[in-house]
Amino acid sequence: MGIRIITVSREFGSGGRTIAKMIANRLGINYYDKELVTKIAQESDLAEDYIEECGEYASTTNGVFFNLTNTTDNAKLSLPDQLYVIQHNIITDLAERERCVIVGRCADFILKERKDCLHTFFHADMAFRAKRITQLYGETELSSFQRLEEKDKKRTIHYKYYTGREWGMSQNYHISLNSGLVGINKCAEFVAKVVKNANASAD
Amino acid sequence: MGIRIITVSREFGSGGRTIAKMIANRLGINYYDKELVTKIAQESDLAEDYIEECGEYASTTNGVFFNLTNTTDNAKLSLPDQLYVIQHNIITDLAERERCVIVGRCADFILKERKDCLHTFFHADMAFRAKRITQLYGETELSSFQRLEEKDKKRTIHYKYYTGREWGMSQNYHISLNSGLVGINKCAEFVAKVVKNANASAD
Repeated sequence: MGIRIITVSREFGSGGRTIAKMIANRLGINYYDKELVTKIAQESDLAEDYIEECGEYASTTNGVFFNLTNTTDNAKLSLPDQLYVIQHNIITDLAERERCVIVGRCADFILKERKDCLHTFFHADMAFRAKRITQLYGETELSSFQRLEEKDKKRTIHYKYYTGREWGMSQNYHISLNSGLVGINKCAEFVAKVVKNANASAD
Repeated sequence: MGIRIITVSREFGSGGRTIAKMIANRLGINYYDKELVTKIAQESDLAEDYIEECGEYASTTNGVFFNLTNTTDNAKLSLPDQLYVIQHNIITDLAERERCVIVGRCADFILKERKDCLHTFFHADMAFRAKRITQLYGETELSSFQRLEEKDKKRTIHYKYYTGREWGMSQNYHISLNSGLVGINKCAEFVAKVVKNANASAD
């Protein structure tokens, strides 16, 4: 079976979003990141800002571990848990319907049973990421470090709560690269090549 | 600064050792795996079999966490801890002396402060690894699964004890690949290419 879906997980500032777009372009398939936020907003009463903020980052209301199979009544769930259920359903439907690249939102976990997915993770050293977000968002170097640390921590907790797994474990991804060392272009080039090779030998 | 040392960490049966050899060949540098065991045997009174067995796998005598900086008298250490200290010193010296590929033995952690190292990790699905060790070592499929599970567990405990880190975390490696999906040849090709690129831009 060939690869139809590529999930892209990434540390904040590693360039994962840019790499995801490049992979989609190279493969000529759709790319879902902000587009997912809009879809989620359409299917819920939640504001896009809230979805951006809580769709990947732990909020203080999260408990120890969330088990989707135990949820019967969505209305009784906390707002972050409701959001996760909506994200889960949209991502599952999307994977069923079209070839695409999906950024973040525990898609690697949500789609882990599918055989047609390639799961990727991009990370980089603090200095590389701080420099990048300083350039992109115009922050000071010091506030960049603080922001990165906070983002990493919140994503780790969010991921652990919804998946039970450690965020960033190599074994959960087919390809994990340090984008600072490998280079953003080269990361995208390699992933696209692996997908093309896998699809060529599956034909 | 260019890349002089490549450390290769790997799940048992993932082909990491073969990939390491291929990387060394492609780069025209030395490769240390069994060669390390021989060096360690020469510098200690330990048998090669014991070094092979305990140099990467937890033994029952290991405690909670080993701290190299607290050790003043090697003779008072347990045998596995003495072995670790010897391995540590040999790997540190090796990195100082020559360009090479080093397989396993916590080399990624031991050399983590050096800027001239590329750290890699190879893993693969159980089925791929079981098939591989069945072919290589002539085991039955069932005993292969049991052996893999036991090896994974012992390596995880050993690594945690000597490094304090989780074995397989993407952030500890520049490149982590599923060799079953990417292909053993392609893994080696990619790593060698990244090293060559990094060294070309460092010139």
